[in-house]
Amino acid sequence: MEDTGTTVVGERVRRPDAPDKVKGTALYIDDLALSGSLWGAVLRSPHAHARITRLDVARARTIPGVRAVLTARDIPGRNLIPMIQSDWPVLAAEFVRHVGEAVALVAAESRDLAAEALRTIAVEYERLPALLDMEEALRAGEVMAHWKVRRGDVQSALGRGDLVVVEGTYRTPYQEHAYIEPNGMIGVPDGRGGVIVYGSMQCPFYVQKAVASALGCDLARARVVQTVTGGGFGGKEDAPSAPGAQVALLAHATGRPVRLILSREEDMAVMSKRHPGRVRMRTAATRDGELVAVEVDYLLDGGAYATLSPVVLFRGTVHACGPYRIPNARVESRVVRTHKVPCGAFRGFGEPQVVFACESQMDRLAERLGMDPLMLRLKNALGEGDETITGHKLTSSVGFRDVLDRVAASSDWSRKRAEYARDAGPVRRGIGLAACYYGVGLGALGKHLNPAGASLVVAGDGSVTVAVGTTEIGQGMITVLSQIAAEALGCPVELVHVVEPDTSRVPDSGPTVASRTTVMSGNAIRDAAAKIRAAMEPVIADSGLSWREAVALCAQKQVGLAAHGWAVPPAITFDLETGQGEAYMYYTFSANVVEVEVDTETGETRALAVHSGHDTGKVINPTTGEGQVEGGVVQGLGYALVEEHALKDGRILNDQFSTYIIPTPLDVPEIRPILVEHPYAWGPYGAKGLGETPVIAVAPAVTAAIHHAAGIRLDEIPATPERVWAALQAKNAGPTASRP
Amino acid sequence: MEDTGTTVVGERVRRPDAPDKVKGTALYIDDLALSGSLWGAVLRSPHAHARITRLDVARARTIPGVRAVLTARDIPGRNLIPMIQSDWPVLAAEFVRHVGEAVALVAAESRDLAAEALRTIAVEYERLPALLDMEEALRAGEVMAHWKVRRGDVQSALGRGDLVVVEGTYRTPYQEHAYIEPNGMIGVPDGRGGVIVYGSMQCPFYVQKAVASALGCDLARARVVQTVTGGGFGGKEDAPSAPGAQVALLAHATGRPVRLILSREEDMAVMSKRHPGRVRMRTAATRDGELVAVEVDYLLDGGAYATLSPVVLFRGTVHACGPYRIPNARVESRVVRTHKVPCGAFRGFGEPQVVFACESQMDRLAERLGMDPLMLRLKNALGEGDETITGHKLTSSVGFRDVLDRVAASSDWSRKRAEYARDAGPVRRGIGLAACYYGVGLGALGKHLNPAGASLVVAGDGSVTVAVGTTEIGQGMITVLSQIAAEALGCPVELVHVVEPDTSRVPDSGPTVASRTTVMSGNAIRDAAAKIRAAMEPVIADSGLSWREAVALCAQKQVGLAAHGWAVPPAITFDLETGQGEAYMYYTFSANVVEVEVDTETGETRALAVHSGHDTGKVINPTTGEGQVEGGVVQGLGYALVEEHALKDGRILNDQFSTYIIPTPLDVPEIRPILVEHPYAWGPYGAKGLGETPVIAVAPAVTAAIHHAAGIRLDEIPATPERVWAALQAKNAGPTASRP
Repeated sequence: MEDTGTTVVGERVRRPDAPDKVKGTALYIDDLALSGSLWGAVLRSPHAHARITRLDVARARTIPGVRAVLTARDIPGRNLIPMIQSDWPVLAAEFVRHVGEAVALVAAESRDLAAEALRTIAVEYERLPALLDMEEALRAGEVMAHWKVRRGDVQSALGRGDLVVVEGTYRTPYQEHAYIEPNGMIGVPDGRGGVIVYGSMQCPFYVQKAVASALGCDLARARVVQTVTGGGFGGKEDAPSAPGAQVALLAHATGRPVRLILSREEDMAVMSKRHPGRVRMRTAATRDGELVAVEVDYLLDGGAYATLSPVVLFRGTVHACGPYRIPNARVESRVVRTHKVPCGAFRGFGEPQVVFACESQMDRLAERLGMDPLMLRLKNALGEGDETITGHKLTSSVGFRDVLDRVAASSDWSRKRAEYARDAGPVRRGIGLAACYYGVGLGALGKHLNPAGASLVVAGDGSVTVAVGTTEIGQGMITVLSQIAAEALGCPVELVHVVEPDTSRVPDSGPTVASRTTVMSGNAIRDAAAKIRAAMEPVIADSGLSWREAVALCAQKQVGLAAHGWAVPPAITFDLETGQGEAYMYYTFSANVVEVEVDTETGETRALAVHSGHDTGKVINPTTGEGQVEGGVVQGLGYALVEEHALKDGRILNDQFSTYIIPTPLDVPEIRPILVEHPYAWGPYGAKGLGETPVIAVAPAVTAAIHHAAGIRLDEIPATPERVWAALQAKNAGPTASRP
Repeated sequence: MEDTGTTVVGERVRRPDAPDKVKGTALYIDDLALSGSLWGAVLRSPHAHARITRLDVARARTIPGVRAVLTARDIPGRNLIPMIQSDWPVLAAEFVRHVGEAVALVAAESRDLAAEALRTIAVEYERLPALLDMEEALRAGEVMAHWKVRRGDVQSALGRGDLVVVEGTYRTPYQEHAYIEPNGMIGVPDGRGGVIVYGSMQCPFYVQKAVASALGCDLARARVVQTVTGGGFGGKEDAPSAPGAQVALLAHATGRPVRLILSREEDMAVMSKRHPGRVRMRTAATRDGELVAVEVDYLLDGGAYATLSPVVLFRGTVHACGPYRIPNARVESRVVRTHKVPCGAFRGFGEPQVVFACESQMDRLAERLGMDPLMLRLKNALGEGDETITGHKLTSSVGFRDVLDRVAASSDWSRKRAEYARDAGPVRRGIGLAACYYGVGLGALGKHLNPAGASLVVAGDGSVTVAVGTTEIGQGMITVLSQIAAEALGCPVELVHVVEPDTSRVPDSGPTVASRTTVMSGNAIRDAAAKIRAAMEPVIADSGLSWREAVALCAQKQVGLAAHGWAVPPAITFDLETGQGEAYMYYTFSANVVEVEVDTETGETRALAVHSGHDTGKVINPTTGEGQVEGGVVQGLGYALVEEHALKDGRILNDQFSTYIIPTPLDVPEIRPILVEHPYAWGPYGAKGLGETPVIAVAPAVTAAIHHAAGIRLDEIPATPERVWAALQAKNAGPTASRP
């Protein structure tokens, strides 16, 4: 929107990490095992809930070539993975609480020996009743966290009688992160009494805390290095702390390098997923479509341990009513403990579940009011000067209306809305809309993890090494931060080299989550770059030297060109009792128009096009930005249409990509990323962040489009052919006539 | 001498790296090969000098499992290892200039395949005449470097006629560094188009330049990481640049990790050594022992390529006349090019050769004057206010007289000098003295490499990661820098963790040589620590918090505790034409009293005791300091008594420890390290450095003691039984009566 006068920022710089990934020469964790390293393996619980009555590893320890067999009692530090609540053990001690929970660890000279050692561990369980249903868990009082939002007087508003009220109960499934690389870690004794853990991960500082806790050592001796990582999507945020601590224990016990690489089946069975959700919602508006009150009862299934569930729930809670002006709102949210695999962070982080509900409600309300769904959103859209349901007054960078206008224009909304409604025959087209907003960064609950650091070192030839504490997980961080470093230093972007994140290089820089990387690491880089420029200025004065010449002159004058940078965001305040305050620093805004085609004879739904708009502030790199949108939309389509887990007695039955279905390239429709730039002043060059919004508001746009196409309203996803067909059958059997 | 008020500095802190080295769990380069990495191997010249008339690698390239065969024409960058002169190729192109010179590189799936590939490379040589003798090379004008010192008027002084003049020609041999770990490197494509080279080395930034030159890439993409290194002694200063560049070429060509580990035989045959030397010297003094003039003609055999020979020669040149007041001095020095393995850096760096001559002259002079050798030194010893032969006026930290007094007292010099002279029978004892001084740091020729950097990162629990650009090579750097960091931060030393040197962590910090590490990296650490303390002060005020409490408070207040530090020494000026100026910033002073026992029937010499005194400024850690002295003395005894190479046609014949003899533990006498602390104001807490002095003045003290014991004067070392026996025979056959 405004000219920031940048030269590299905003350009379509090519990803430095692309060639090696495309050619297959990038070295992932499984490519990095040291010669002669040991194979780690984990004995896992077959039961959802049981007491361990016997655990005898004596025989396993006698097998030649088996170097370590560890149980909970062999942990030198604490048997705890530090996360929000102190409930998550590295190894089960007396109880197992989900299928796949780690019970013992083995390190052996070969994979076969490790497997043999696992088989010879004698373990007996006394099975206990398992809570496997979230409603049942709620009744049993197994609540891990409970948040609320209280704004205005919902009760009175709903009692007014002059309002149109719609209500529904919405259900969303597990979702797999489906990263292309399963979790894996290598632990290497550091030659000085500590352990270095290398691995596929998003958050080295989380893994570091888990390693230090398990080993009982200082943080500086629990060094964690991220290797080239094949996708994260939140699944490598909290979950890798477990294999990280486990491999460190094995390396520490054996004094040898140990690799612990999960198979796809093991990874799917025991690593975290998106929380299944259930949302009950009532939405009230005036007859001309002005939102008056929203009431939300939001429930998530947390699984056996809390991991990050409380903050996942928090994000869903404060965003539960969408990017709209709502004078009266009441949100009650709970995440419950069940005897299933712990759910955790997943792109969108508690929003997709509740946004599916909220936006389905908006579509329902528009239908009830006889109003265009786009018009309903535009009428209530948050703008500058408006307040969110937490009472956060938005003073700048609120591009929501622009986003709505742009996706409407891109999709030719009004024309298609009318045209598709005229479709006859068994295959019918529909067009639907959904929107969301997203508080960037860690917010009120995570603000203690907010700051981020960077270290910049300029070599004598002008090439620059940048180290940050956040990670490249496919999203394009290396590219974007290279551009920010180049812009801030005034150097050619080709000279910037971002090294692998390593907890020993910068202070704790928090996690790579919440779309915070560009802003936080970007600002830390700018801080360091400013120090380096300040050191250069007295030497180069106004001499008009090129970057390389200026660096050469500084080298000649023995000026050291290196600096640490640090970024701390502006403070926010929030009251957890009332749910009022600044839940997050600032927000991005998003809307999707989805076009589908529904085969009313088979129930099959095909996405035809997605017009995906986002106000993300200044776009550092349009290509990586568009990539974020395209990837998020496809992940959202999977959530909407095909992805779900089947469980039996707490065990996941579909633990392979042949049984857990995700969209293939053939399923991907035309995607039109639309990036709307309302700059955010504190962000680097006005950037806000774009990791998560693309996935959030896809599913409700899909079901709205299905409704538009086939007249059926799905309150549960995924919209599989079976579910759509069943809904069509129900509609045809019911009193309401089908669309002609 | 003065109370520096330190709490950790000066203490005998235990080496953090000791346990893993003692237990064998430290991971050296050969322990670190990645699974599935390729084996590198080098085809080497069998000739000292030849033209390559045919080099055909076609057949080698067809062998299944051979992934790369590279010759000079396959180098993407420059075929040059950047050092002082542009003469050293990564791979021989048209000519080979020494036995063992690299001609081609191979990377293959197994060691056997690599060897097979080497055998199938067809190479034909046209042999050329080889210069194998340094005097012959001098006559042929093959001078690599020529330095001089001109002080006063030596010619007039020598012509005065009233002076006592002694002269001699002294010869010193090759010496092997005999590090316990041969050279080895692993190159790993960095996943982003560059190569990371891991290896056993002293100077990562030298290797980095070689890798960047050979690959033709930016320095930031030629990242070099030092692994746990089993000794260097200068042998891993310049020489590892060759295998470093070679392994990078192989990794780059194959896109795979490649290991290149030299066998002991290969390492001894082709890696650098101490330069053989020949020194002619005339020393003139008044009859009461006042030095008036010294004339030196100093020659070194540089081998085929210049490597660091010019600076090795420079150090010998400016230190050629010893730590004495000498009004008239003339030094002429040259290093010549021969067709032998390139010599290079070696602890002492050009001083041991010339100090052997200078101190032998002093012993000779004392004999001629009928003066006690200790008295002669004390009479002429440099003190504060005196000038070196380069006209460098020493204003502080000149502890030479103290050192002489302390070694004399420790050895009971005067009593033993008289007592041993009375020995009769075939086995006779003798006691001898020699001294030297040593300009710390890189000096006038290397000052462009002077600065050093450090990065300090404080974790939330108060543990500290320290990164520097200098290396631990067994000398105790990690321990000493941990103490300096702890002292400067005010934190417990157990919390300091020094990570492996990595060129991406700090700007070019120069080499780990010249006893500069404690001072340069120590000062860089202090600079960084001061920034961190400055960031902490406003938060902690005068609250009396412990370190951990203070860090926790800063973490809570989101203060980033990380900083880069930088140290640049005071400027020095030097005129190479006159050899006048500040050759080095400042000096350490050293003297050894050696007691020996000579079996006059077999010629066998046994060292009984060495009293080794050093003014090194403040001693950061007495234990590591004493370790430096003990190690240096043993290496000096090897040089004095047993170590030498036999060559035939330029080929080293004794290339194993069964044929190249070094002292064993059984050969080590009582060693009394005496550390004299004259603080140097710019050094951290007054430290000066202690890497090299212990080796320098050992040999002349040994030969002085042999002279004292057996009345023979050896002008050539090592003083093997054969050489001593021959000298005894010559003496007994000569006109002078043997000692009774």
